[in-house]
Amino acid sequence: MSEQSRLSVKDLVARRKAGYALEAPFYTSPKIFRVDMDVIFGRHWIYVGVEPDVPEAGDAMAVNIGPSSIIIVRGDDEEVRAFHNVCRHRGARILPEGKAIIGNVVCPYHSWTYGLDGDLKFAEHMGPGFDPKCHGLKPVALRSVSGLLFICLSDNPPADIDDMAAAMAPYLAPHDIRNTRVAFQSDLIEDGNWKLTMENNRECYHCAPNHPELTIPLFAYGFGFAPDALDEDGRREAERYAELMRASHARWEAGGLPSREIEHLADRTTGFRTERLPIDQSGESQTMDTRAACRLALGGLTDKSVGGLSFWTQPNSWHHFMGDHIVTFSAIPIDESHTLVRTKWLVHKDAVEGVDYDLQRLTEVWDATNRQDADLVAIGQQGATDPAYEAGPYSPYTEGLVEKFAAWYIDRLAASLP
Amino acid sequence: MSEQSRLSVKDLVARRKAGYALEAPFYTSPKIFRVDMDVIFGRHWIYVGVEPDVPEAGDAMAVNIGPSSIIIVRGDDEEVRAFHNVCRHRGARILPEGKAIIGNVVCPYHSWTYGLDGDLKFAEHMGPGFDPKCHGLKPVALRSVSGLLFICLSDNPPADIDDMAAAMAPYLAPHDIRNTRVAFQSDLIEDGNWKLTMENNRECYHCAPNHPELTIPLFAYGFGFAPDALDEDGRREAERYAELMRASHARWEAGGLPSREIEHLADRTTGFRTERLPIDQSGESQTMDTRAACRLALGGLTDKSVGGLSFWTQPNSWHHFMGDHIVTFSAIPIDESHTLVRTKWLVHKDAVEGVDYDLQRLTEVWDATNRQDADLVAIGQQGATDPAYEAGPYSPYTEGLVEKFAAWYIDRLAASLP
Amino acid sequence: MSEQSRLSVKDLVARRKAGYALEAPFYTSPKIFRVDMDVIFGRHWIYVGVEPDVPEAGDAMAVNIGPSSIIIVRGDDEEVRAFHNVCRHRGARILPEGKAIIGNVVCPYHSWTYGLDGDLKFAEHMGPGFDPKCHGLKPVALRSVSGLLFICLSDNPPADIDDMAAAMAPYLAPHDIRNTRVAFQSDLIEDGNWKLTMENNRECYHCAPNHPELTIPLFAYGFGFAPDALDEDGRREAERYAELMRASHARWEAGGLPSREIEHLADRTTGFRTERLPIDQSGESQTMDTRAACRLALGGLTDKSVGGLSFWTQPNSWHHFMGDHIVTFSAIPIDESHTLVRTKWLVHKDAVEGVDYDLQRLTEVWDATNRQDADLVAIGQQGATDPAYEAGPYSPYTEGLVEKFAAWYIDRLAASLP
Repeated sequence: MSEQSRLSVKDLVARRKAGYALEAPFYTSPKIFRVDMDVIFGRHWIYVGVEPDVPEAGDAMAVNIGPSSIIIVRGDDEEVRAFHNVCRHRGARILPEGKAIIGNVVCPYHSWTYGLDGDLKFAEHMGPGFDPKCHGLKPVALRSVSGLLFICLSDNPPADIDDMAAAMAPYLAPHDIRNTRVAFQSDLIEDGNWKLTMENNRECYHCAPNHPELTIPLFAYGFGFAPDALDEDGRREAERYAELMRASHARWEAGGLPSREIEHLADRTTGFRTERLPIDQSGESQTMDTRAACRLALGGLTDKSVGGLSFWTQPNSWHHFMGDHIVTFSAIPIDESHTLVRTKWLVHKDAVEGVDYDLQRLTEVWDATNRQDADLVAIGQQGATDPAYEAGPYSPYTEGLVEKFAAWYIDRLAASLP
Repeated sequence: MSEQSRLSVKDLVARRKAGYALEAPFYTSPKIFRVDMDVIFGRHWIYVGVEPDVPEAGDAMAVNIGPSSIIIVRGDDEEVRAFHNVCRHRGARILPEGKAIIGNVVCPYHSWTYGLDGDLKFAEHMGPGFDPKCHGLKPVALRSVSGLLFICLSDNPPADIDDMAAAMAPYLAPHDIRNTRVAFQSDLIEDGNWKLTMENNRECYHCAPNHPELTIPLFAYGFGFAPDALDEDGRREAERYAELMRASHARWEAGGLPSREIEHLADRTTGFRTERLPIDQSGESQTMDTRAACRLALGGLTDKSVGGLSFWTQPNSWHHFMGDHIVTFSAIPIDESHTLVRTKWLVHKDAVEGVDYDLQRLTEVWDATNRQDADLVAIGQQGATDPAYEAGPYSPYTEGLVEKFAAWYIDRLAASLP
Repeated sequence: MSEQSRLSVKDLVARRKAGYALEAPFYTSPKIFRVDMDVIFGRHWIYVGVEPDVPEAGDAMAVNIGPSSIIIVRGDDEEVRAFHNVCRHRGARILPEGKAIIGNVVCPYHSWTYGLDGDLKFAEHMGPGFDPKCHGLKPVALRSVSGLLFICLSDNPPADIDDMAAAMAPYLAPHDIRNTRVAFQSDLIEDGNWKLTMENNRECYHCAPNHPELTIPLFAYGFGFAPDALDEDGRREAERYAELMRASHARWEAGGLPSREIEHLADRTTGFRTERLPIDQSGESQTMDTRAACRLALGGLTDKSVGGLSFWTQPNSWHHFMGDHIVTFSAIPIDESHTLVRTKWLVHKDAVEGVDYDLQRLTEVWDATNRQDADLVAIGQQGATDPAYEAGPYSPYTEGLVEKFAAWYIDRLAASLP
């Protein structure tokens, strides 16, 4: 640890060994955390929520990302915009985290009043020399990808979000995100660095020993395994999965549902991956009995068994789009050893709780899975803090996508450090 | 933020822009907080309480200021003295924060026993070579300004407290602080830097939108407004206030109550300001119905409508002296983002709770106001921590005294940094 | 404080004044805390528990020392071994702190499975290039001193533990630690630096004013006093103690119980001290009535009045071995201002609670004493944090063994700093 703590971030980046977990300071150093907030969360597209979070003009949502707070608000022209949540007078935070319905953005301190477009409309006692035009809310770049909202805190946001948006549009269209609503949101604080949260999400090697609920609908095989090491039962299961994958993809694509993997996790600034995955048993949804949780189908879907479209973005999101509901996740760093995992369950906007869906049934698989993952992230952080920690090897079969996350992260640091 | 964090404290002091809020590191940097504790709270007169906190010989009070703890104790000679609350043996903190009645100052660890004058009277087992005279409690400079207690942690306290004491004596005398007692004390921890606490206290621009209780007795006009921007109702109200101010000052001064403003907030080491302000409606006191909260008048006052004498000191106190009671406030830094606001309500020493005053009625205006101010300080701190924070302009009308606080603070740092 | 904070650790070590408490940064500086964890707790023998904590094959205990976590486990060959509690795959902490009964050491994350000897027995999906032999648990040096377990985190542990083990064997043998069991364990977090915890343990100057329960069985005279300062009652008591000491030692040694002081607190890397001390009144045990708390005698002891064998080790343990029970303490640093004091009460392995002993009676003296000591350590830490703190003189009579602790600590730093 003492050798590592003498190394610069640049040296640590340079000596990163492919195929191995990151060295301890990447998980534990407050200094590297500040670099992460600057380089990764300050200059890349960050997933923050969905258009249905602010469905109508005047709907606002404040989202905190580390020390930054951002107001997402839908204007009278139906456009969704983002602004820094900082008054231009004495700098007070204007809106508390969460949602609000507003006519203007009014600072509670001295009532400075901004329009939904960010312009300063009213500031008392400021005298004749004061120019309101120079004191509007500072804008933040925002992009809706088929209804998924991404913001970028940089003045120069990566342009390749266009590629991701174009590639994802046909995959996401059938689920018609804009016509859903948020049935439930959970905020869970994990006791670990945000990269442990993300690495945990990028593999299912840990699923069998830890996720009894999730492994009912989800095949762990979809994320890699060692074929040589399988016994006869294992081989039979793996073959069943491979055949189901082939057949499902053929059926879905024939029916106009793009399903094949697109994988740009490590070769793009705005890294992402998608693939439509079969669901086990009835094949309908990520529920305890694999049947749909909501009676109203999303979009124009008539086939109940459309599996789950998996969509991941670097650095901080993952999503499952099913025929009846969507589960969408963002990881938001708090400090070097704490991360907020925010989960939203979306159903058709006309679905009525207690009639069309039962909230418990809708949320129970991922609620349990999130808690289990939080425990794993916590023991990962405890271990990374131990002076005896030594970065071990990833499985070449089941942790290839963890490697792609780590490689993307290291590349982005390398590209940004002077 | 990264540019700011590379700048030295000296550079930040030098580039401070008059008329604008301070830059973020002044509110958020642990390093500048340590400078504040050293330069501002270590070398200036700090208000800590009132003589009625220790009314009799043997009455003691321990007050913590950041990492320092000070014992204030009245000796058998009736003198009030201050000492560092640190045993000269193994350095234990001797008295817990708060009040005590004591015969000697006895360290609980090994019973080292000091007199009320700080001399070491007894230390067992120390052998013949040990000289008790070299091991008395370390003294702290203490000054009573008409009953208000100020301490200075420096060996070389600013001499100009004499000027303040002389100027304030005739203003404070009629309220006869020494013949009051503390009816109630509240300790409220604000989630913000101490300078945000002080800046918030130095203006009433925020009163109308935030303080429904305080604005019953207190005129926001007394702290500045933009005359051009007033509508007809506003102009009428402002004129009513100006006329009331003129008439009240004439009446009070004729009756021997000094009332005119003395303002040395930014041009003295021991900066201060005072002025007697009219109270609205019945004109008696800062209560919900503007009537006296206590039946016993302070000092020899016979006029019930003596308004509220406002007294501010740099860096950490403000006070309201009325005919029937006094409210006195100190701001004590805890760390760069937390500040203790200690409020004491004083009534005539013979006043009996439930007979002469109702505690709820006495305290409700400032109890509510303190909580509201704590919320404002918290959003100020959240905003200052946001990388998007940018110091905005003060109102030339309503925030002139905030500017004087900021200017005093910057001047004091500039004078003290090498 | 500012001068001290500019000094290097090496300068502070060099200028330490013998006979005086340590300077403040030794108690308050996070930097010196890291040096302590590296030099003192990273390169010396640390007391962590007793063999009866893991009496049978498959019994395991995880102990945390600062950021390190260590697994102590008894193998199928009855050997007790220690390993770093960090998985060699992605570094997760394997066992939570506390005890477990296990067949293998299994990481909960991806089920990597280690034998009780630390060898990696099973790791799925790792492919043909992976060598399990290179991925066993990292061993930690462990030594049982007559049943007391010491670990050393260094690859090069001090060899002189052999001397301590040899010297202590005849003193400890009569109490037969291996045939006891842990009747109760308490974990108490003290709000102070670990050295304040240890210094407090090394003297009984504070006993009379603070420990009404402990001073029933324990003579404060055993730890030094100033003979000149005694009044007639005091002199009589001191003489009674000296005579009791002479007589008891003669009787115990004649009966085969080594009792005389061995003192190597400051002249060994593995510093220690032992002495058998008389108990007041009935002379049996450290209980409220000085009578044995447990009906079953330890080892082969037939004499009920064997006093209390005191055994101290540097840097972090103290112990009392009586005829009927043992109380054993370890101090484990948490951060520069928090320390875990772990206390275990041991009785004969066949003793039955409620039949042979009453748990309340067994534990009440040290439970009360621990809480009182925690209060003293807390005021010591508060004082050390005060800028007015100045290291005062130790009593030449009652604090000579505190001086030996401080001298050992300073010597060890001096020997280890480059």
